[in-house]
Amino acid sequence: MPVYNARIIVTLRSSILDPEGTAIEHALHELTYTSCTNVRVGKYITMNVEAESEENAREILDQACRKLLANQVMEDYSYTLEETEREPA
Amino acid sequence: MPVYNARIIVTLRSSILDPEGTAIEHALHELTYTSCTNVRVGKYITMNVEAESEENAREILDQACRKLLANQVMEDYSYTLEETEREPA
Repeated sequence: MPVYNARIIVTLRSSILDPEGTAIEHALHELTYTSCTNVRVGKYITMNVEAESEENAREILDQACRKLLANQVMEDYSYTLEETEREPA
Repeated sequence: MPVYNARIIVTLRSSILDPEGTAIEHALHELTYTSCTNVRVGKYITMNVEAESEENAREILDQACRKLLANQVMEDYSYTLEETEREPA
């Protein structure tokens, strides 16, 4: 079966406060990087998905994101998929 | 001055163990998604950078990543930059 490399990004919705981003922004400003603003922090998750087709891999990923990786009340997710060479058995 | 939207990805180097990724992989397998393997977790940081030029914005971002956002002993970073419309004064 083909193996797909997935790169998933999970971000807080823009209406949700991001204290981690605010903390990073304050730290950047103290390091004199005052030109950096509107800092927001999300998660970047990579994984391999073995699936019969790209459509099948997308179904698995959507379910995984909805059930585990993203809290859809507060977060949005997006991902890209790329077929990789299957590792030799 | 132009404003650039930066999307920064900070990932653990492949030689570094990723317990968070392992925990997510176990949870996915318990949810029956056993086709998901090699899960790794990183950070995704977005920010606006006000700079005279794209080159200048890249200098600021490289310094911010090296000094604050990424621990270069264990992590790699990459980013993309995109010029945004300047907000009206």
